[in-house]
Amino acid sequence: MPRILLSGFEPFDRDTVNPSWEVARALDGWQVDGATVQAVRLPCVFGEALERLDAALAVGERPVLVIGLGLAGGRTEVTPERAALNVDDARIPDNAGRQPVDRPVVAQGPAAYFSTLPVKAIVQALRREGLPASVSNSAGTFVCNHVFYGLMHRLATQAGLQGVRGGFVHVPALPEQAARMPGMPSLGLEMQVQALRVLLQTALTVQTDLREQGGSLR
Amino acid sequence: MPRILLSGFEPFDRDTVNPSWEVARALDGWQVDGATVQAVRLPCVFGEALERLDAALAVGERPVLVIGLGLAGGRTEVTPERAALNVDDARIPDNAGRQPVDRPVVAQGPAAYFSTLPVKAIVQALRREGLPASVSNSAGTFVCNHVFYGLMHRLATQAGLQGVRGGFVHVPALPEQAARMPGMPSLGLEMQVQALRVLLQTALTVQTDLREQGGSLR
Amino acid sequence: MPRILLSGFEPFDRDTVNPSWEVARALDGWQVDGATVQAVRLPCVFGEALERLDAALAVGERPVLVIGLGLAGGRTEVTPERAALNVDDARIPDNAGRQPVDRPVVAQGPAAYFSTLPVKAIVQALRREGLPASVSNSAGTFVCNHVFYGLMHRLATQAGLQGVRGGFVHVPALPEQAARMPGMPSLGLEMQVQALRVLLQTALTVQTDLREQGGSLR
Amino acid sequence: MPRILLSGFEPFDRDTVNPSWEVARALDGWQVDGATVQAVRLPCVFGEALERLDAALAVGERPVLVIGLGLAGGRTEVTPERAALNVDDARIPDNAGRQPVDRPVVAQGPAAYFSTLPVKAIVQALRREGLPASVSNSAGTFVCNHVFYGLMHRLATQAGLQGVRGGFVHVPALPEQAARMPGMPSLGLEMQVQALRVLLQTALTVQTDLREQGGSLR
Repeated sequence: MPRILLSGFEPFDRDTVNPSWEVARALDGWQVDGATVQAVRLPCVFGEALERLDAALAVGERPVLVIGLGLAGGRTEVTPERAALNVDDARIPDNAGRQPVDRPVVAQGPAAYFSTLPVKAIVQALRREGLPASVSNSAGTFVCNHVFYGLMHRLATQAGLQGVRGGFVHVPALPEQAARMPGMPSLGLEMQVQALRVLLQTALTVQTDLREQGGSLR
Repeated sequence: MPRILLSGFEPFDRDTVNPSWEVARALDGWQVDGATVQAVRLPCVFGEALERLDAALAVGERPVLVIGLGLAGGRTEVTPERAALNVDDARIPDNAGRQPVDRPVVAQGPAAYFSTLPVKAIVQALRREGLPASVSNSAGTFVCNHVFYGLMHRLATQAGLQGVRGGFVHVPALPEQAARMPGMPSLGLEMQVQALRVLLQTALTVQTDLREQGGSLR
Repeated sequence: MPRILLSGFEPFDRDTVNPSWEVARALDGWQVDGATVQAVRLPCVFGEALERLDAALAVGERPVLVIGLGLAGGRTEVTPERAALNVDDARIPDNAGRQPVDRPVVAQGPAAYFSTLPVKAIVQALRREGLPASVSNSAGTFVCNHVFYGLMHRLATQAGLQGVRGGFVHVPALPEQAARMPGMPSLGLEMQVQALRVLLQTALTVQTDLREQGGSLR
Repeated sequence: MPRILLSGFEPFDRDTVNPSWEVARALDGWQVDGATVQAVRLPCVFGEALERLDAALAVGERPVLVIGLGLAGGRTEVTPERAALNVDDARIPDNAGRQPVDRPVVAQGPAAYFSTLPVKAIVQALRREGLPASVSNSAGTFVCNHVFYGLMHRLATQAGLQGVRGGFVHVPALPEQAARMPGMPSLGLEMQVQALRVLLQTALTVQTDLREQGGSLR
């Protein structure tokens, strides 16, 4: 059966849980539109995260969809990312203590890749289901963007992966994290999992994205 | 069986749902520590809201606890309020089109009443359960504060109500509301209901509040 | 010549500057409407701050106006405070290492005092001059609120001070502070000083405050 | 004498002032490091803004530096932008009523261009002068990003412009704008002008940017 690769990250920055992995794990084995979700847990480490992703891409048949998930502390909504930048610039050390500054993810790679997910249709579908969502114009410059860029580069350049749709989605903190960080917005795990179900279904069935505004003034 | 009066508001400001009433309704009839929750739906109207509360206070036996719930759009946490001010100052019209400015809730009433809930113990209990919570130092100056002040004035001055514990708790928007208002933080209904369960239990069992800091620099 | 007492605080929380004192100092000796500003620098210490204020109130003739200034890091506007609460609840230690929790400012004092400044007229006058301003409904529970409450209590209860107008105004951080704290909003010192000039003039000349909404929904 | 092209925008979104143009205008004719600032006022209109920029680039000698300025309402700091995306996605109509959705700025252009300004050195220099500043990872998808991308494309592809340094800088609202929009952060015009002086000098004198972290987790 065709597979959907869905990655999440291990906890980072001294936390003990990462909703991106909790969501991916909860959907492992879930079937949608004739495909099955395969969850992959990535280390929050520059370089190693992409090695783990490469291993998952290499074993088994060509996926129909590859989506990376990551935590965006401070966001209130599920946010499909629009574009990945070819830069690593770490504000804090990663889980291996590395803190690259202004280095390309891929030497000689293009400055950016756009998501090939139908991000507008996804946001519309999520909102219709009562799930908070917006398009994001920046995936940051930490390991999330690193994986997003690395993924899109592989999908664009590796022979066996061309034409595979892919992208990255940031999710809010969990309420249990917010309970330890006063003022932090959150979204419950069940809502996040339900959002990813809607998102995967939309990504599999909508071929041409909506022409609906979702931009930002700045 | 002793009763706990738990009020919530009808929707306002052109919205179609108000989590404060959804939470109260969900707990109507719930039994805790030998008492039963009685949910009361208040109109979002200055004056009329207190008349409806008075009616609920008058019918039946003296409650063991009276808590008002209200929506605080923009907040991320369940926030027990510390104090009610003796002022009505409406930024928008209420549901009857009234917009009082700088009028006392109770003429000749004291400037403020403090909640008699153990707000620090409540916040600690909620956080321990993984539910985001903080003490709030301002209930605003709209119908929420109006009901909070009016309630505390009744508990302080009406013969049959003296000694009854009471207070007010603001809750965040629901995810379905946030789905219509990009950027708005939210907390799922089940989490809010669970938070109120923990809160009611704490309010019934903790007699002396914790001496734990919960203040604000400004 | 009649005097206006204008207090500001020394730096706190490991900072090296406090705009509240910089503003007060800049206006020391300034004359407006036949009165002269007398700046007073308060220690950021519970108790001692009020002792210093008492000393300034005691020496010299009865002031025509007494206004406390304090820093509210995170605010974008000059914010006249509406009410002071009778509670000390310190989130961080003060400059003497004290961290009172849920203690009254004045034992047996009323729960709150309202500012006797024309806060609505002040906000309107500031905005007309292109200076960002809003009414605030909470002065927090740290040394700022402590001084605000202590001041209003003295103006309400001390024989020689009755009828003297008073209040408290929070100001934003300075740009130089924001330069050390990424994301912190700020307002330049000259703007802050100009705002206080407009504020003092308005407080001296407007006897009855505007009936203009300035409330908050929560 | 060599020229620095510094563009600002006309007001938009029903406002009457735009700090980006006020800053550019204030620096028109200012000399720094042997070069003179030439201010250019751009219409806030997709397409026309770049036509106006083209006209300014075409007349006169090759500039040594080209910087676009734009207003980012809601930001607290002067923010040099890191990258421009090849997308127009307007959340509101521009000043000609156009609202493009998900169209490339330049058909067949690369997905993004990086600023060639030393953005880390600029942020460090600004902070050292007590001016709030941060690197931004998204210039949005409105006319600002449109001009930024169009500019970098011209500098990268037009024979006479290759090697010319360029970039884009967002500035906060002015206090007078914040006075009309409660809660909006601002930075005074003099501070903004001073920030641009420091920024231009840094851009002219620092050849290799600092290797200093300035990234974002998301």
